Amino acid sequence: MNWTLARRADRLNPSTIREILKLSERPGIISLAGGLPAAEAFPVEALRAATALVLAEQPREALQYAASEGYGPLREGVAADLRRQGLTVDAAQVLITTGSQQGLDLVGKVLIDPGSRVAVESPTYLGALQAFAPYEAEFAALEGDDEGPLPEALDGARGARFAYLLPNFQNPSGRCISAARRLALVERAAALGLPIVEDNPYGELWYDEAPPPPLAAAAGDGAVYLGSFSKVLAPGLRLGYLVAPKALYPKLLQAKQAADLHTPGFNQRIVHEVMQTGLLDRHLPQLRERYRAQRDAMHDALTRHLPAGCRWQLPAGGMFFWVELPGGLDAATLLPRAVAAGVAYVPGAAFYDHAPCHATLRLSFVTVAPAQIETGVAALAAVLAQALAEEEQTA
Amino acid sequence: MNWTLARRADRLNPSTIREILKLSERPGIISLAGGLPAAEAFPVEALRAATALVLAEQPREALQYAASEGYGPLREGVAADLRRQGLTVDAAQVLITTGSQQGLDLVGKVLIDPGSRVAVESPTYLGALQAFAPYEAEFAALEGDDEGPLPEALDGARGARFAYLLPNFQNPSGRCISAARRLALVERAAALGLPIVEDNPYGELWYDEAPPPPLAAAAGDGAVYLGSFSKVLAPGLRLGYLVAPKALYPKLLQAKQAADLHTPGFNQRIVHEVMQTGLLDRHLPQLRERYRAQRDAMHDALTRHLPAGCRWQLPAGGMFFWVELPGGLDAATLLPRAVAAGVAYVPGAAFYDHAPCHATLRLSFVTVAPAQIETGVAALAAVLAQALAEEEQTA
Repeated sequence: MNWTLARRADRLNPSTIREILKLSERPGIISLAGGLPAAEAFPVEALRAATALVLAEQPREALQYAASEGYGPLREGVAADLRRQGLTVDAAQVLITTGSQQGLDLVGKVLIDPGSRVAVESPTYLGALQAFAPYEAEFAALEGDDEGPLPEALDGARGARFAYLLPNFQNPSGRCISAARRLALVERAAALGLPIVEDNPYGELWYDEAPPPPLAAAAGDGAVYLGSFSKVLAPGLRLGYLVAPKALYPKLLQAKQAADLHTPGFNQRIVHEVMQTGLLDRHLPQLRERYRAQRDAMHDALTRHLPAGCRWQLPAGGMFFWVELPGGLDAATLLPRAVAAGVAYVPGAAFYDHAPCHATLRLSFVTVAPAQIETGVAALAAVLAQALAEEEQTA
Repeated sequence: MNWTLARRADRLNPSTIREILKLSERPGIISLAGGLPAAEAFPVEALRAATALVLAEQPREALQYAASEGYGPLREGVAADLRRQGLTVDAAQVLITTGSQQGLDLVGKVLIDPGSRVAVESPTYLGALQAFAPYEAEFAALEGDDEGPLPEALDGARGARFAYLLPNFQNPSGRCISAARRLALVERAAALGLPIVEDNPYGELWYDEAPPPPLAAAAGDGAVYLGSFSKVLAPGLRLGYLVAPKALYPKLLQAKQAADLHTPGFNQRIVHEVMQTGLLDRHLPQLRERYRAQRDAMHDALTRHLPAGCRWQLPAGGMFFWVELPGGLDAATLLPRAVAAGVAYVPGAAFYDHAPCHATLRLSFVTVAPAQIETGVAALAAVLAQALAEEEQTA
């Protein structure tokens, strides 16, 4: 049978991370690979109560077809929360999405033509590369430093459809863009007429101090802002949102309708009920405490075990350490040895649009407990030390 | 700010039906417009029990990130059910989607290039036109009769990426493709090397006898098959699935992953638990009985009230009557008068890819009870009779 694929299907490829996650599901492997929130921390009791309430009080509304924009009270709640973070936003600008991954897909669908340039951090979130690539984007990597992408790097992206930025504890690098850099980036982007797509799944997961206000707070109609309930509540509900300038909203809404009609109303009402109880005020401090301890355990283990020449920053939030390896080691090549030694990670190359740095890897500190982090990092360190020794011998 | 839209965004447009649904939400309007299943018929108790079970026994698995393919036991259940309907299908070919609308989007993303032809029935499902159009499909309408599209009409679609067919109680026409016609279509399509995308949301909603086996049962690797839990359980869960030939599955899976990572695992597990109890064996006969009575009430009301010259078929299943109007009446022009008279419907023109027939309208018989159907149809008939009288006066 003549199934002819669309040209864009060439840009759909198996996910490296998926394959690694399969490897790391083997019994006995300590996985520092997946970006899975700690399941023990899910607020199950609160979700159970909210679900019971929805099914008792509004079952038929929750189970019926619903508006593509999302559940009104949830949109109001999201807008109110974002206003507290400094954004000027009306509920009419909020579009509820099936996870923030869908927000990325909708942005790509509405804004990217074949050959359109999209400016990205380097490294950047793999899921965004996967969402934008099928629309045949050409990626332009933005140079940066520890404070974030360089404002002058945006000059090279003049004419791009947008710059995709993750200001808070970026996946994979853990980098948090400084307050001054945010303002400088917004100013430069505005001068260039370059729109910003700001993705903020990790903003609430800070362990030292809350991050600066979102770029969108300064960029106004120059930014689309993406958020998610996956990291603060639970990812299995698949609930995210985007905030769009009023001129752009209708096309994103129509793309949403074509994509899945609407995000499950059942899930939206459950999350709205949970938010109504003020759960996050109690839940987030606990979550931060848990993850802070795990982050510190990983930093400690890395410091004690990793061979000389490995470099990493202590992330101020989020879920990941980003480790740079010495001596030209290739994290992808070493992965099978690490798995054989009982530990999995994600090689960093997948997070680059091109010109990947192979001597990098990502470690998640949120999925497993401190004792396992210690064991896993020790195992990883042994593999790295051995590889360095072999390299030295060869040289 | 220079938001530049992708060219495909020109093909995203406000949904006529959405606008009509908004109109019909005014108090006092009897809406025969929306394709909303009867909310009173949702199996709320069964869903409540299944939800409680999932949250008691597997809350953390249900709330965690999950496989893009879908929840294994649900995929097995779908495959087993389809095998009973005559399809040769392995669970590995089942992809769980966020409603079957997402299945349409994924098919479009993977198979349609700008300018690709897609063969469609005329009229056809509006949501499919909306899903395929942004990929810049060129639609080719298939001529047909009461038994379905004509097999020889496929000859004109040679070279199309696929033929999109709704064999069972099509939305909007209510048409069911006969068994002989199904086989003739599959044979002709195979001879032409023309793939089939078969969409079957309404197959279980039969009121006289079960429909013939799906086209996919005969077409094998020449068909993608789409199904949904929206009409048999509840649409607010947003749960559908597609079955793809093994050669095509990986690209659809990668497109799914880019679109929303995975369909909510919470919802998948709830539906799996409900299916496990054998609920549908009890629920579907009740649902058919309810909808059959409403269908008969509408047929009766149409027969008694509509002016001479109006034509419709008694649908053997599904949710809709498709009415052809006499004397060059335009259903879209008449809608405001109908709404003023207290009844809403969907003008038929929206369901055509081009060359719409304006003298058609769609009535849903599943949303409101028989007494309201009677009142609504009477009001519609009065508007039509008045319009015909005015037309006669003008002529």
